[in-house]
Amino acid sequence: MQNPSIQSVSINRFFNDSSEATTDFVVIEEPVEIRIQYHDSLNGWITKPISITMRTPGDDEALAVGFLKTEGIIEANQVEGVKAAWDNTVTVKLKEGIQPDFQKLQRNFYATSSCGVCGKSSLDALGYSYEHLNFVDTLPALSPELIASLPQQLSQVQSVFEQTGGIHAAGVFDWEGNLAFHAEDVGRHNAVDKIAGKALLQKKLPFNEHLLVLSGRACFELLHKALAINIPVVIAVGAPSSLAIETAARFGQTLIGFTRHQRFNVYTHPQRVALLY
Amino acid sequence: MQNPSIQSVSINRFFNDSSEATTDFVVIEEPVEIRIQYHDSLNGWITKPISITMRTPGDDEALAVGFLKTEGIIEANQVEGVKAAWDNTVTVKLKEGIQPDFQKLQRNFYATSSCGVCGKSSLDALGYSYEHLNFVDTLPALSPELIASLPQQLSQVQSVFEQTGGIHAAGVFDWEGNLAFHAEDVGRHNAVDKIAGKALLQKKLPFNEHLLVLSGRACFELLHKALAINIPVVIAVGAPSSLAIETAARFGQTLIGFTRHQRFNVYTHPQRVALLY
Repeated sequence: MQNPSIQSVSINRFFNDSSEATTDFVVIEEPVEIRIQYHDSLNGWITKPISITMRTPGDDEALAVGFLKTEGIIEANQVEGVKAAWDNTVTVKLKEGIQPDFQKLQRNFYATSSCGVCGKSSLDALGYSYEHLNFVDTLPALSPELIASLPQQLSQVQSVFEQTGGIHAAGVFDWEGNLAFHAEDVGRHNAVDKIAGKALLQKKLPFNEHLLVLSGRACFELLHKALAINIPVVIAVGAPSSLAIETAARFGQTLIGFTRHQRFNVYTHPQRVALLY
Repeated sequence: MQNPSIQSVSINRFFNDSSEATTDFVVIEEPVEIRIQYHDSLNGWITKPISITMRTPGDDEALAVGFLKTEGIIEANQVEGVKAAWDNTVTVKLKEGIQPDFQKLQRNFYATSSCGVCGKSSLDALGYSYEHLNFVDTLPALSPELIASLPQQLSQVQSVFEQTGGIHAAGVFDWEGNLAFHAEDVGRHNAVDKIAGKALLQKKLPFNEHLLVLSGRACFELLHKALAINIPVVIAVGAPSSLAIETAARFGQTLIGFTRHQRFNVYTHPQRVALLY
């Protein structure tokens, strides 16, 4: 079966002193429209387009559900069902009586914010607020060997990256290092949303005792999405940004970066990692 | 002088069988609010917030101007001035009599599109349209050696990457391979916007005879921004996505990817590159 995330293209490959016409595989990037269907006591069932997102096809239903969850528009127990159509639309149907929080939608996409960012700290200005994650007392500290091994484990299931080199991966592991969910996408935030959606549809949210591993860098948006699904530990292969660190520090998340070649850096809440002597 | 794009943080570094408390440098990610000030015959001067964008501080005025230009909201000759304030806001003032195209704004951010993507090709659905770039007849074909050398040239001016490992770079070179503009940012689209803004403020737009070099991957959004400033050749160090290729193919752009170790792939319009025999 053809992988729906990959497309073959004709290229000219240049190397050293020669060039040749050949074919190559590239990762597919395509828009998808995410819609919410909800019941309004006045107007009955309403379908409302929420967002057009660039994504790699595959796990579209999980992407839509996860996106709505990590952006705070719906809660895990509010989903009645989800259906992807052939026309690149995905509709998430909410249970009768549930009104999505469109206010949150507007705030999170902050296309035109009138309050602005002036005179507040970045995080306050963004208007996000999460429950402080505080699981350290109930779980054993993670071994550095386990942490260092996870990106390698994730890369073993990255089928699209291997063929295209053009995709981000994310994986959720349990506290013992077993892979629970993983996803790939041209957008790193989409990979996390796909995981969130898969877990939501299997009624595995919130995570609480799981680790999120990211194949790339850790910016604010990813920490924000990880907090929305109660991930206490985020492990990135790449560099973290200052706002990712600030977010993790404030809300109780352990943020680990540059996890490669048996090394890593712990930026926040190191109490969840066993020290080495 | 301290670099405004870099922050030092306390970390715990783990490697092999030891750990140590130390400091590390990370790239700054912070929100900035981009505002337009324009004159309305009815209401006088109006200041309207357009977008809150996560970015790395530095070149904020260029970022704001470039963003408005590459998103099609303003034209190069419509800017009266631009001013960054200490409160993380940047205001772009338009010449009297100029009305920004807010319709375009809505379409480009496609937060809630009612037309949707159903039954159209991806590009048509997105509603973008550009002039077809067609400069091949007036310029000599680029030598493969020159193309292969550009990422290395760009990396030599990437000061923030060297210290943080967490940032994207973009550079515009002339047809002979001389660096004209470059910028770094935690967001790869911001790096291109910063370049577009610098060039606009120096009255160097449109580019027409320049090459855009990207330190990372090439997705749709970057090709879209490159088209808005008439870049005929985009050279990425990383992989291109399918929609980046489709966009470049349709609008006459040469798209080159995986430009590393004396190799590269030409995905579209190879007539601008001299073949090797």
